[in-house]
Amino acid sequence: MIAVDWGTSSFRAYRLDDGGAVVARRESARGITQVPAGGFPRVLGEEIGGWLDGGETIVLSGMVGSRQGWVEVPYCECPAGEQEIAARLHRVELEHATAFFVPGVTGFDTAGVREVMRGEETQILGAMDELPGEAVVCLPGTHSKWVRVRGKRIVGFSTHFTGEMFAVLKAHSLLGRMLEAGAPDEAAFLAGVARSGAPEGLLHHLFGVRAKALFGELSAAGAGEYLSGLLIGHELRNALGGAPDAQVFLLGAPGLVDRYALALRSLGADPRPLGAHSAVNGMRRLAPSGFSGR
Amino acid sequence: MIAVDWGTSSFRAYRLDDGGAVVARRESARGITQVPAGGFPRVLGEEIGGWLDGGETIVLSGMVGSRQGWVEVPYCECPAGEQEIAARLHRVELEHATAFFVPGVTGFDTAGVREVMRGEETQILGAMDELPGEAVVCLPGTHSKWVRVRGKRIVGFSTHFTGEMFAVLKAHSLLGRMLEAGAPDEAAFLAGVARSGAPEGLLHHLFGVRAKALFGELSAAGAGEYLSGLLIGHELRNALGGAPDAQVFLLGAPGLVDRYALALRSLGADPRPLGAHSAVNGMRRLAPSGFSGR
Repeated sequence: MIAVDWGTSSFRAYRLDDGGAVVARRESARGITQVPAGGFPRVLGEEIGGWLDGGETIVLSGMVGSRQGWVEVPYCECPAGEQEIAARLHRVELEHATAFFVPGVTGFDTAGVREVMRGEETQILGAMDELPGEAVVCLPGTHSKWVRVRGKRIVGFSTHFTGEMFAVLKAHSLLGRMLEAGAPDEAAFLAGVARSGAPEGLLHHLFGVRAKALFGELSAAGAGEYLSGLLIGHELRNALGGAPDAQVFLLGAPGLVDRYALALRSLGADPRPLGAHSAVNGMRRLAPSGFSGR
Repeated sequence: MIAVDWGTSSFRAYRLDDGGAVVARRESARGITQVPAGGFPRVLGEEIGGWLDGGETIVLSGMVGSRQGWVEVPYCECPAGEQEIAARLHRVELEHATAFFVPGVTGFDTAGVREVMRGEETQILGAMDELPGEAVVCLPGTHSKWVRVRGKRIVGFSTHFTGEMFAVLKAHSLLGRMLEAGAPDEAAFLAGVARSGAPEGLLHHLFGVRAKALFGELSAAGAGEYLSGLLIGHELRNALGGAPDAQVFLLGAPGLVDRYALALRSLGADPRPLGAHSAVNGMRRLAPSGFSGR
């Protein structure tokens, strides 16, 4: 079996042996935005063609199953667990393999507004056995997800624009022009997290980054860390809502998970980082014929 | 006397007669970012050279007095009224005229964090006679200012990043790619204002614009209005704080003032639009020798 985690900006493939262990991997920057219309079978062949000897099962998860991807797979409605998601795999016969696309999940935020994810549901399924019966899982990233899990099913979730906001402000705003890359600066990061609790809101706090730098209260290197802390702090306070001391499971790239854990601890919450590679675990569980772990 | 309102992205000059009436004006897109280092005297000459016959008084306000402008004029500390600001005019002798640069104002937000303005202080001075003894003035724009006025002096203020945030998201984010220009859509705008009061904060609400569009709940034209309402709604709720029914004086471009007034009314506040051209009035009041109005 082959597991393919194909997102907006990256391609990751894992070859699994019959016992479910990863025996080979391929990684590239050929995310779905780098693939021309109709080019998905060709790119897949270029990336992992050597692995295919006929009759392989490939499970694909992430934005590859979106309108901008290979094929648009309808979302699975919450509550969504392994059974519901596996039942909605989208099968496509390829020349030397059979592909199964994992559907994204749709549900509602706490105010009843429609939400969507593609890829994170697979990571959560892969980490499900590490979660208690009721849990909040945060997957930090370009679009951070805060997922409510109950009885091994995703029951609802909320997305925060945090990572994209940081990237866009850094690259294209007046604030970005002041920022310089520098060594990690935990004090500046935590000062940003603390500031996020002040009155007058995010749009006001953002301008304060400029005023602080203008008056020499922030270095050009520290300003980036402060901005990161400010945005993550706003996300965390809003996501924690009335439960600032909540237990929050963290799932994602180790550096980002560390950053979120640091901020969560500073707010009095209880961060619980989960193991990496949950996407592969999730796809192994979803694969439709007898692999271990399923 | 000549009044020059020279900001980041525009140049506006007004020639006043001895009675203080505007008898001629020049306007161009040659804001300070369009002027090369050392090029300010030349650009001023190109814009209004024909008005200068020797001995003219020119008052300049806005970002032209900043580190990126003609000359960096130190900020005037709050509380700052006409007297304090006039005492800190920065005089520069030119070939055919004498220039007086209006200092910006610095003070603190409600949490004691440093704030700055350049140009808005002149607009407020120009509208001061229309204000009661104690007032809140909002100047919507790229960086909206919320200014607390007492006894004809600026006592403190807060800046919101709202206009720049809208522009940056529209031009450079995943959200922007979904937006299309369209006719004004008051219903979509007010839906955004209403959504800004929901739980989970701005970073979450921003992602919701995408989800709503994906599920056909927002048209591409309506999405821009909704995003505008969302951002302005967040600014207003945070700026109004514990006084949602407050009286708010509005000073700025008519279209933007109308938009803010609509949103303020929908939140139960009491918007009071002020007359335009307050920047000219302010410079006339600040001019150091006998002009009417001073």
